[in-house]
Order: sequence, then C-alpha cells, then structure tokens
Amino acid sequence: MENSSDSNPIVIESSVNQVRWITLNRPQHRNPLSTEMITTLIDALNRAGDDPSVRAIVICGSGPIFSAGHDLREMSKQGDESLHSTQERIRSILTLCATLMMTIVHSPRAIIACVQGTATAAGCQLVSSCDLAIASRDASFCTPGVNIGGFCTTPLVGIGRNISRKHAMAMALTGDNISADEAVRIGLINEAVDPSELLNQTRKLAERIASKSAQGIRQGKADFYRQIDMPLEDAFTYANEAMVQAMTSQDSEEGKAAFFEKRKPQWGDA
Amino acid sequence: MENSSDSNPIVIESSVNQVRWITLNRPQHRNPLSTEMITTLIDALNRAGDDPSVRAIVICGSGPIFSAGHDLREMSKQGDESLHSTQERIRSILTLCATLMMTIVHSPRAIIACVQGTATAAGCQLVSSCDLAIASRDASFCTPGVNIGGFCTTPLVGIGRNISRKHAMAMALTGDNISADEAVRIGLINEAVDPSELLNQTRKLAERIASKSAQGIRQGKADFYRQIDMPLEDAFTYANEAMVQAMTSQDSEEGKAAFFEKRKPQWGDA
Amino acid sequence: MENSSDSNPIVIESSVNQVRWITLNRPQHRNPLSTEMITTLIDALNRAGDDPSVRAIVICGSGPIFSAGHDLREMSKQGDESLHSTQERIRSILTLCATLMMTIVHSPRAIIACVQGTATAAGCQLVSSCDLAIASRDASFCTPGVNIGGFCTTPLVGIGRNISRKHAMAMALTGDNISADEAVRIGLINEAVDPSELLNQTRKLAERIASKSAQGIRQGKADFYRQIDMPLEDAFTYANEAMVQAMTSQDSEEGKAAFFEKRKPQWGDA
Repeated sequence: MENSSDSNPIVIESSVNQVRWITLNRPQHRNPLSTEMITTLIDALNRAGDDPSVRAIVICGSGPIFSAGHDLREMSKQGDESLHSTQERIRSILTLCATLMMTIVHSPRAIIACVQGTATAAGCQLVSSCDLAIASRDASFCTPGVNIGGFCTTPLVGIGRNISRKHAMAMALTGDNISADEAVRIGLINEAVDPSELLNQTRKLAERIASKSAQGIRQGKADFYRQIDMPLEDAFTYANEAMVQAMTSQDSEEGKAAFFEKRKPQWGDA
Repeated sequence: MENSSDSNPIVIESSVNQVRWITLNRPQHRNPLSTEMITTLIDALNRAGDDPSVRAIVICGSGPIFSAGHDLREMSKQGDESLHSTQERIRSILTLCATLMMTIVHSPRAIIACVQGTATAAGCQLVSSCDLAIASRDASFCTPGVNIGGFCTTPLVGIGRNISRKHAMAMALTGDNISADEAVRIGLINEAVDPSELLNQTRKLAERIASKSAQGIRQGKADFYRQIDMPLEDAFTYANEAMVQAMTSQDSEEGKAAFFEKRKPQWGDA
Repeated sequence: MENSSDSNPIVIESSVNQVRWITLNRPQHRNPLSTEMITTLIDALNRAGDDPSVRAIVICGSGPIFSAGHDLREMSKQGDESLHSTQERIRSILTLCATLMMTIVHSPRAIIACVQGTATAAGCQLVSSCDLAIASRDASFCTPGVNIGGFCTTPLVGIGRNISRKHAMAMALTGDNISADEAVRIGLINEAVDPSELLNQTRKLAERIASKSAQGIRQGKADFYRQIDMPLEDAFTYANEAMVQAMTSQDSEEGKAAFFEKRKPQWGDA
C-alpha cells in the first residue's frame, strides 16, 4: 500500500458540500507530526483557505490514533551528529510545527478537529489549536513528554489557553490519558459523541458552518484571536472598529435584507 | 400604554432594600440595545453608582426576552445614506455600547444580570459584562451574528473572557442557542434556577451583597478587573498595595472590630 | 505540647519516597499565614527545591482547617500605632505572602496542595498558587474578606487565574463557602476524594510525579508559567526555544533511549 505517493498520500484531501476534509494518513505510524506531515498539512490548509469552493475545514486522522505527536525517531540525535546540529534540526521542526498551529489560527476558514483516537503531545496541541473539536467518546488526550525526560512545553501553549491552569499542569505533570468526557468537562474539546456518530456529527457541524457567510467568519475569526490577547478596554476599541466593517460588508447587507424579507440569504464568495 | 414616556419608560428603575433594579422595558421589541436604551441604561447605572442608598444593582428585562441585542433596523443603512455615513452611525452606536459595558465594569457597585429569557448578541455581551449572572432554567444565550452575514465580534470580547476559547468559538460560529444549564457548565453564568424562583433568588443574592461593606466592594471590584489583565507578578504587586489600603479602611477597621467583638458591623456610606 | 519549638514546630517537614511533605502545624489557631508561618514555609520550600533527594512537594495542614488565611490579630492596628505604621506593617506581611506564592510558582518542584479542611482567603490563595490541588470531599473554599469590610483582592490574583471571572467574583462578593465538588467543577482544584482517601491519593499522585525526570519538570514548570502570560505567537516562539533545550537534555536523551529500548529510564539528579 505504501509503494507510491499517489496511492498512499500522507495527507488525504477531499471536499464534500463545501467542507474540506484533511486526513492525517500514516495510521501504521500513528499519524506522527513528522516534517513531511507538517509541511503537507500547512500546504493543504493554505490551499483550503485560498479555495473559494471551501467554506469549512475538518482535520481528522485515519486509523485508531488521531496523532501520536512528533516523530520521536526524527527528533532524536542522528548518528554522530553534534549537539549543535541536533538542536538546529529540532529547532527547525518545532518552528515548522508552530507555523502549522498559527496557520490554523490564521486560516480564514473555521477549522474543526475530529478526533477518533488518542491525541498525544503535539497531536493534542493540534486539537487545541483548532477552532472547534469533536471527539469520539473512546478517544483520549495526553501530554506525556514528562515520561521521556522532557515536558510538553509547546503543546501547553495551545492547551493552556483552553483549560484551567490546574488541569493543564495535571496533564503535563502526570502525562496521564484523559477521556473525551473529561476533555469536554474541562473545556479542551466541545463535544464527545458515540464512535459511530463521530463522522456524521462532525459533517453536520461543518456543513452548518459552511452554510454561513464565509466573509463574516473570515473576519470574525481573525478578530477573535486578536482581541482575546488584549486588555479589556483595548479589546473593545479594536472589536468595535472590526464590527463597523463587518456590519457594513456585502454579506452583512445581504444578511440583514434576507432577515427582514424572511428569505434565505445569498452569500458572496468565500 | 406607550402613549407617554412617563407611563412607559424605556428603563424602569426601582429600589428595594438598598438594591437598585434596572429593567429593560421594551418587551414588544424584545428589549433591543437601541441608542435610546443604551443611553438610558448608562444614565441609570451612573445614578445608581452615585446614590449612597444603593448598595447593589440588578439588570433585568421585562417580557419573554432578556435582550435581542442591537436594534437591527437602527443598524441598517438608512435610505440613500452613504457607506461613510452608515459606518459613522454604526461606529457611534458601538462606541456607546462599549461605554455601557465599561460603565458596568467600572461601576462601584456589584452588578447582577437576572436573565429571564433569551440573551442575544449584544444582549449576551451585557450578561457577560456583569459581575454575576443568574438565569431562569428556560433562558438561553446566543451570538447569531454569523446567521446574518456578520460575526458577534464585540459580544465575544466579554463572552471570551468568561469561557473557554472553544466554547466561545462554538457560540460564534454556529449562532446556536445554548441553554441556561449549559451556560452554567461553561462558566458564562453563575447559576440557573427554576423560572418561578428567578426573582426571589436574585433578590436574595443582591440583598446579601448589599449587606456587605460598599467601600470594600467598590475598591475590590475595581482592583479585580485591573489586576486580572496583568502578568502574575505585576498583579501581586498591584493587588498588595490595594490590599494595604483596603485593610486599613474605615470599614475594614469596623469589620475587624465587629468580628472580634462578635457583633454586627456598622458599615460606612456607599 | 506547645512548650518548645522542637516538639511543636510551626511547620513540619518530612520526606517519604522522594516527596517532601510540608505541613502547616498550628491547628489550634487554624494554621494562619502569620509572618512566622509564611517565613517558615518559604524557607521549607526553598530547602525542598534545593534538596536533590526531593522530587515533588506536598503542602498540607494539620487539624480540621487547612488554613484560615492571614492572622487577623497580626493584621489589625496595634495599640496606638499610627496609620502609616500599620500600613507599613501590613505591606510587609503582604509582600512576604506574595513572595511565598511566587516561591511556589518559581519552585523547581511540582507542588501539590492537599486540602483536608476549609481553605480561607490567603489560605485559598495558597491552594490556587500550587501546581495541583486535591481536596477531601468535605473541604471547602472561601474568600470572605467582604464580610469584614474588605475584599479578598490578593487571593483573587491566584484564584482569578484558575477559574472563570464570574465564579471568582461570586466567591469574592458573597464570601460564601464553596464545596470541594464545586471547586472541582469550576477548575479551582483538580480532584475531590473521600476524606479517608485524601492522604493516600495525594501520596500516589506525588510519588508518580516524583518518578518522572526532575530536570524535565523543573524546566517545564518554569516555561509554562512564563509563556501563559504571553500573547499566543510570542508564547510559541518562547516555548519552542525552551523545547529545543528540553529535547536535547541529558534526561531527554535517556528517556528516548529507554523508550526505544523498552526499559525503565535512569533519570539524572533533581
């Protein structure tokens, strides 16, 4: 099955009803965030963001594991490599990985993580960086760097902005798996559903979002992540100016007109 | 009933047991945050903040809806108005609305939102800006700007500082109603109670807070919202200096004396 | 029992299986955070942080109360002391108390609060400043400064960074006790357990953490609290550089080797 890049792409892209499904496709290796995987994901996300026929994005994984995080073999010292060279190599992988996370945050489309199995370390960071996350009830989440002499410091950047500090430190200090239900309880994901319902529920959510104004979401998503890092009063000032533009956009005029005329709106291009 | 501003005020103010009840009173129009409503609310809040007989404030709505948010007709393009004029007009409404939110945050009194029905968009922002919020179990909350071609960008300033990013984005991207119980679960409000108990429970909570030192609450509330936007160590430095003043205030001396003498304290003026 | 400092130390320190247990030991006075208590705790924490035989720390209390917070008598005006002198005295106690909280945050060891009874005001702040917190199901938490004419402004620095603003303000404005289960629900603590299981569960958690790489935890803990106060993109940049060091540390090399060789890792010194 792995003899050709065509027959076995590392990332599968497909589109249904204006939703781009981006699937991590190295199940035999637990969908590691290798350099090749990260580069291909960034490319797929950028293309989905630029494609006017795409109005929402789902990131999912094939096989029993969502993603095991970085490829430990790729991260390890290679042969007689110097410390300096190892660090340079790891630095460039981590920088690329942060670029993936910021690509998600900066994408003009809403991005949903659809988690069918364990999301580990940078795999869990990937989930935390998406706008929304749905998981199968039997999925789990963990940041086990502490078990191999490190600490999931970069995953905690994303995770620590979704959940209480106490919960973030519990994940990082114990490395324990937390269940999908617990992940819902603490705010790491939005929803846990029956395994048999995962794709269907994700599809419904993504298609509902795809039916909204893509202009509204593009601007609103960008504004949310920008204002949320500001002090309160600055955030209001920033958000007000954004809102003036949003409320006089082409889609906004159409949305208000359709509302008053009690008809379905016709949105502009994505 | 609507033939005179006296017989049908847009905002009803009443005081019981040192609690000022401020009621949005345009139920036929779903209590919209129109320019007139916002201006009247700011004025009512400022007067309640200056009135020494008021020691806590409740904001509630009459009729089946708490507030539907901005008045969409007022926000729309008027006749052959230029884009520039429309934007100027919207900008001034949004600026006024942010002033309302900051008036709540800067008020010397504790302010409780008492939510009897749906709180939508800027109406939900109003709830998020209050210090505390109680809702009827059949109330609901939503930010549906995305359904009319926009995005609830300014509501998310307040909402996004109360709940997880994932929950905030779910509200904004779907526009879905969330129930009062769900709003409790994610931290948007404090409590959901039986509809028949809403006023009574709100009254009890407000009167309990009104029985505390108004000086202590005035200073403590201001300090909380200031320190929470600072890095940890700066926050401690700031809070310590505030605490030195608080612990040597007139009410603090009285409070400690009453505690040691096992008697009821006699607080100073609000 | 109180006739000698040896037989009745204000803080008891003991070590079992590389875990340092630090016990507030003035149960008759409800373990107040007096100047002596704070100074002794800082000293105990610093020694535990410097001791290579210690790989995790538990802070607990003896008697029915975890800690009642500051010593109100020490905080009150002494005799005919001037306002200036009282303020200077209170300022130095609060500065010392903030030093205790920052000592916990800056400690190279993971620190678990083990809460067997009520944690009040600065006692609740102490819990909020620890990395993790477990409580007996019959423990409770409160910030009742508002009841004595003040406001728990400094406790809210720590508490407000663990829980929703609405919950933090509810605690501060009402002064009410919240139960351990409620404290779990809102994210103030990690877990509530049966009273009979508290020490045992804390011990198990602490020993599991003590079995991890102390180097990994030292660096990872410091990095978490630093990045969490930064804007998102700065946090990734900071965390990436920290992660490069972490992934090439001695313990990390050992951890990865042990993982690939399917053996137990041999960590370096704490």
